[in-house]
Amino acid sequence: MNAYTPSRDDKFSFGLWTVGWEGVDVFGTAVRPAMDPVHAVEKLAELGAAAISFHDDDLVPDDSTRTQTLERFTKALADTGIVVEMATTNLFSHPVFKDGGLTANDRQVRRYALAKVLRNLDLAAELGASTYVLWGGREGAESGGSKDVRAALDRYKESMDLLCAYVREQGYNIRFAIEPKPNEPRGDILLPSIGHAIAFINDLADPELVGINPEVGHEQMAGLNYAHGIAQALWHGKLYHIDLNGQHGPRFDQDLRFGAGNLREAFWTVDTLSGYDGYIHFDYKPPRTEDEEGVWETARGCMRNYLILREKAAAFRADPEVAEALAAARVAELSEPTLAEGESLADLRAQTYDPDALAERGLGFEKLDQLAMEHLLGVR
Amino acid sequence: MNAYTPSRDDKFSFGLWTVGWEGVDVFGTAVRPAMDPVHAVEKLAELGAAAISFHDDDLVPDDSTRTQTLERFTKALADTGIVVEMATTNLFSHPVFKDGGLTANDRQVRRYALAKVLRNLDLAAELGASTYVLWGGREGAESGGSKDVRAALDRYKESMDLLCAYVREQGYNIRFAIEPKPNEPRGDILLPSIGHAIAFINDLADPELVGINPEVGHEQMAGLNYAHGIAQALWHGKLYHIDLNGQHGPRFDQDLRFGAGNLREAFWTVDTLSGYDGYIHFDYKPPRTEDEEGVWETARGCMRNYLILREKAAAFRADPEVAEALAAARVAELSEPTLAEGESLADLRAQTYDPDALAERGLGFEKLDQLAMEHLLGVR
Amino acid sequence: MNAYTPSRDDKFSFGLWTVGWEGVDVFGTAVRPAMDPVHAVEKLAELGAAAISFHDDDLVPDDSTRTQTLERFTKALADTGIVVEMATTNLFSHPVFKDGGLTANDRQVRRYALAKVLRNLDLAAELGASTYVLWGGREGAESGGSKDVRAALDRYKESMDLLCAYVREQGYNIRFAIEPKPNEPRGDILLPSIGHAIAFINDLADPELVGINPEVGHEQMAGLNYAHGIAQALWHGKLYHIDLNGQHGPRFDQDLRFGAGNLREAFWTVDTLSGYDGYIHFDYKPPRTEDEEGVWETARGCMRNYLILREKAAAFRADPEVAEALAAARVAELSEPTLAEGESLADLRAQTYDPDALAERGLGFEKLDQLAMEHLLGVR
Amino acid sequence: MNAYTPSRDDKFSFGLWTVGWEGVDVFGTAVRPAMDPVHAVEKLAELGAAAISFHDDDLVPDDSTRTQTLERFTKALADTGIVVEMATTNLFSHPVFKDGGLTANDRQVRRYALAKVLRNLDLAAELGASTYVLWGGREGAESGGSKDVRAALDRYKESMDLLCAYVREQGYNIRFAIEPKPNEPRGDILLPSIGHAIAFINDLADPELVGINPEVGHEQMAGLNYAHGIAQALWHGKLYHIDLNGQHGPRFDQDLRFGAGNLREAFWTVDTLSGYDGYIHFDYKPPRTEDEEGVWETARGCMRNYLILREKAAAFRADPEVAEALAAARVAELSEPTLAEGESLADLRAQTYDPDALAERGLGFEKLDQLAMEHLLGVR
Repeated sequence: MNAYTPSRDDKFSFGLWTVGWEGVDVFGTAVRPAMDPVHAVEKLAELGAAAISFHDDDLVPDDSTRTQTLERFTKALADTGIVVEMATTNLFSHPVFKDGGLTANDRQVRRYALAKVLRNLDLAAELGASTYVLWGGREGAESGGSKDVRAALDRYKESMDLLCAYVREQGYNIRFAIEPKPNEPRGDILLPSIGHAIAFINDLADPELVGINPEVGHEQMAGLNYAHGIAQALWHGKLYHIDLNGQHGPRFDQDLRFGAGNLREAFWTVDTLSGYDGYIHFDYKPPRTEDEEGVWETARGCMRNYLILREKAAAFRADPEVAEALAAARVAELSEPTLAEGESLADLRAQTYDPDALAERGLGFEKLDQLAMEHLLGVR
Repeated sequence: MNAYTPSRDDKFSFGLWTVGWEGVDVFGTAVRPAMDPVHAVEKLAELGAAAISFHDDDLVPDDSTRTQTLERFTKALADTGIVVEMATTNLFSHPVFKDGGLTANDRQVRRYALAKVLRNLDLAAELGASTYVLWGGREGAESGGSKDVRAALDRYKESMDLLCAYVREQGYNIRFAIEPKPNEPRGDILLPSIGHAIAFINDLADPELVGINPEVGHEQMAGLNYAHGIAQALWHGKLYHIDLNGQHGPRFDQDLRFGAGNLREAFWTVDTLSGYDGYIHFDYKPPRTEDEEGVWETARGCMRNYLILREKAAAFRADPEVAEALAAARVAELSEPTLAEGESLADLRAQTYDPDALAERGLGFEKLDQLAMEHLLGVR
Repeated sequence: MNAYTPSRDDKFSFGLWTVGWEGVDVFGTAVRPAMDPVHAVEKLAELGAAAISFHDDDLVPDDSTRTQTLERFTKALADTGIVVEMATTNLFSHPVFKDGGLTANDRQVRRYALAKVLRNLDLAAELGASTYVLWGGREGAESGGSKDVRAALDRYKESMDLLCAYVREQGYNIRFAIEPKPNEPRGDILLPSIGHAIAFINDLADPELVGINPEVGHEQMAGLNYAHGIAQALWHGKLYHIDLNGQHGPRFDQDLRFGAGNLREAFWTVDTLSGYDGYIHFDYKPPRTEDEEGVWETARGCMRNYLILREKAAAFRADPEVAEALAAARVAELSEPTLAEGESLADLRAQTYDPDALAERGLGFEKLDQLAMEHLLGVR
Repeated sequence: MNAYTPSRDDKFSFGLWTVGWEGVDVFGTAVRPAMDPVHAVEKLAELGAAAISFHDDDLVPDDSTRTQTLERFTKALADTGIVVEMATTNLFSHPVFKDGGLTANDRQVRRYALAKVLRNLDLAAELGASTYVLWGGREGAESGGSKDVRAALDRYKESMDLLCAYVREQGYNIRFAIEPKPNEPRGDILLPSIGHAIAFINDLADPELVGINPEVGHEQMAGLNYAHGIAQALWHGKLYHIDLNGQHGPRFDQDLRFGAGNLREAFWTVDTLSGYDGYIHFDYKPPRTEDEEGVWETARGCMRNYLILREKAAAFRADPEVAEALAAARVAELSEPTLAEGESLADLRAQTYDPDALAERGLGFEKLDQLAMEHLLGVR
């Protein structure tokens, strides 16, 4: 089982707020005490993680202890070798953000939100983060009349354009990543899916500086295939960061450890990430049933499951019988242009087609999928 | 009730395949006989529609009767004043398309599909259609290994680029509109939402020529807010066509008449479409319980419900109490830039914010929404 | 609009925890201060409600002030004429219930939970409640191995049987009502739907004493039709209480005010409740965007929407054109036994049937539904 | 891999309509030719199945060839040793059933449906089936006014009572099993879940004769946990038959081969079925991408996946580390009565509880679940 013990090279990363989640939900109060970020760093280092990420309010919630906290924290980073790879702003916990941050109707709220982002962006740069995430969980609406969606997108763009200009100006080595989510906590959230976020980014002043940070559960809450989603993001060159966890389809945001939920899609996710060299970031919530020991079990489980699936995906791709099944399924044929080089549409139209004969060709997808299943189950 | 009788100026349009649906589903055979397209045109004209749309296989399924059918059909258009506003290709019914058309693994299938599109594009131009829709219902997969999503997007782009070039070359006055759908009939369909489609279009060679044709039910099958979706599409300038119908959230594609399903979202949809001057196209399926008389009831119902909701949305926007509630909800304040003209980010950061005080401001969204509700219910 | 001003005879009831919700959710802290139950009673009385309901922790969270609180509270009831119609136990907020109350794996937790129910049952009886609700929101699991579902049902039954015996013994005039929910806060909750709860009740020692308290949103989170659900509950004689609110299908539990969410289903719900003489209880959460004034708007909205829909449902049922459409749809024919009196199965089988001819009869359901729609929209 | 080759003792069963599915769906025509039932029997026998099931219309769609078909079919059964374990009636394909069979508004349709059931029940008895399934896919509604749900339940009960009496009278060794489904093809289907069906059965005249036939995908379409569902059915003694397949949550009915879809839930399903001695019946649809060879791959895959999961579930239960984790999770403690023998509620209430201390006990569910995961993945 040592094969599944993570090392720094695996580039696993955790949000401070994940292992530090106290367990407050709509129906219940905290089940675990607040966790010292230094403790989180030390334990994650011990388990084999390479990096952490944070919201301003996770790390420095209180101005009076900010300097001291940062000193202790940077020392812990130095001591453990853990790096900060990503940072983000908490624009959702304080009641001031009840109608959103960057797209709140209340202009003073928007200004406060933007100032809060900027302040933490400076800290992110200082701590060496290369990605700055924006999850707009409160940017949305419960009812149709209360939010002018087009004006909201204007304001979102205004903020993103200002933030990009600021990063360029400051010379920060930081790229932004927008994290889409369809709903919860708002009734409907703006930029609800991978697609909506990429479409939006294309209309920014500086689109190169902005990509996405898709989360497994957020896409699955919309019934969307996460592996397909990140494949499209990769096709657009927009997969700037990633949030792995688990979910059981359209329902509340479960934030299970990676592997729990839709395990088959987790396998294809890891397969799709083959060649991706960014951090493998887990954004999940250890269930309320767990004490601190259970919290570390979940962190360990996220990493182990990734490593197990990575090994299996590699074995699947290396299996000669799989190669045969892929050929029978004509999977590589999809990479051949439909029009031959030099061919015209008139040429294509001049060809005679026999659709009934073409229709008889079986594709053998089920055989291929059963091979994948058996690799996943470890019976090949 | 005459107020809700449609006229040509309302620009209502119906697919031939909607009123002509025979009722075949996964579990049952046809409940209604095939409908002559000429009869459909005559009846829709009588009911007040302005236009129709068609798939090649709806109108000219059979080459041996093609010329005669088109003669009868164009005569019916001339007689009734009905125009053809949109056309599209059936790339899903024939078994040859079981793994897709433009992104089928089988290159010969892709070539046949492209030829089929081109042939019907010529007919669309001949019949005066200004929009050509591509719904890729069979472009997708049931299992992870069978489809290389990035290669599929390459092929989708290849086809779209070829089609755009062809339209430019031929001088056709036609724009394309991609219709997204998350799943059904394929397990997961490529370009599953409004956002994914717009993101994709931005990477085409000729993005100006391509927009989207979002369908109410398709977005709602992913739990997404359709009114929000078309607002984002309008923001991007990409709402080239529209498909209205009804749906009950994440489940099979119900294709109910417009108004059925999520009525409140239908209200906000019509409100969002205020100022939109394209055709109002209905893409739905009259339930199998209906005979032909019932079919016309559903067509009438789609148009009536649109007109009723249009009147109510206008009354909502004209109501002085609504204006007050909108002001209290600070809806228009979202159109004010967050940064004042000439202001710098440093200025913004220099301001002192009192988040606790800002948090106390109630937004009054529920009062506003109740006003909308009472307009919708006709009790104001 | 006076027509929609509630009176005591309308028997509207609210949970103290609804108007008193402070707005804590998974992602955010309180947006409103705690509300004094006495204030809630006074305001609800003023708005026209007839009754309230409470959890022990809503009303008497603190033993040290219990006596004094109850004195003030009963005085407020007497002063306003508001009655307590239902009570329930909070078996979900305290971390002790993180794995459930009556079905927690930890036997000491189960014992504590049962004692907590009994204590509040005594208070419920003292305050005159006629219904005691059990919502088992924490009775469930996130993972397959952690909960022995059959043992859990044994324990659930043990508790219910003990509680029923206790009520009989004490001579309390109280019936129990189980409130089903599919998920949230637990990954999967036991007794997830109306059906599961009724099935369970049938296996209790004293089934007469136990019915259900179905909530609109809870059924809709499973994509189920709430009006159908309560119709089945009425058929079984098990609709002992009701929780009205609003929801947008499978997603997090939104607890919108009644009418928001699926408005058409709200109409059929009110229609189905025609003749029901229990309290009309609202269990919802005023959105976090609202200040206290907004809270009262939502309470007012719940009641107004019910009254509006009740009027419309009555008008629909009284409309002669509807009567015709119902006849054409053969709706009443479903009440005729399939086998005639005195007829045998052999007789039935001896008849000759012409399925093709029978299949041609249109049912006219869409015409009927459009009539309902137009009553709902207030355009008839 | 021989370990996963099925034998007759595994009691695997397939519907004739599964391997025989031609691939007609709402959007497309048949991709495979009709399959001769005799061929299906022979191939399934060859693959290791023990039994088959059928609808009347699968086997004997045509009266003119009925006798001859049955002769060939019974010979094939005798030759192969395959038995008929279940039969059911097609009350959904013919347009006569567009508004249902046993609960159609049209009384003549109900009579025809009942006669059709009786006729096939005789054949089922003749062929030795021990279970007769009723899937009421068309028993439902698309709109609220068209179906009187309480009257429909009366008619459903009337039919079930008549059928039970008939079986008793004829001395058939047959039990009925109702198969619930939430929607599709009807907008909302009556008896939408396991729970609703069991509740209904309790009100029949002869409940002993009727149980349920739950299908994986049907429960998952409502977001419900299938393993929990069958655990409750077993608790009620109502799991009379089972339909295994795969599904991806709330969306159209996918009918994937067993194992595809939610693999983790498939594992817990097989674990829950430990000790169940009925047939393991697969009800799925080989995807349209497959030719006949692919069809047999899917049949083989269903059985292999069951056997693989059965082995893994047994290994999980036998693992000493799992035993420790189960003990730490207090899973068995849930089987201890909450009240001790001889203890009174007064005793229980007299105990002093320290909820804060109890709350600190971690349950270790995640460690347990990770062990299950690693058994499933074959890395332990």
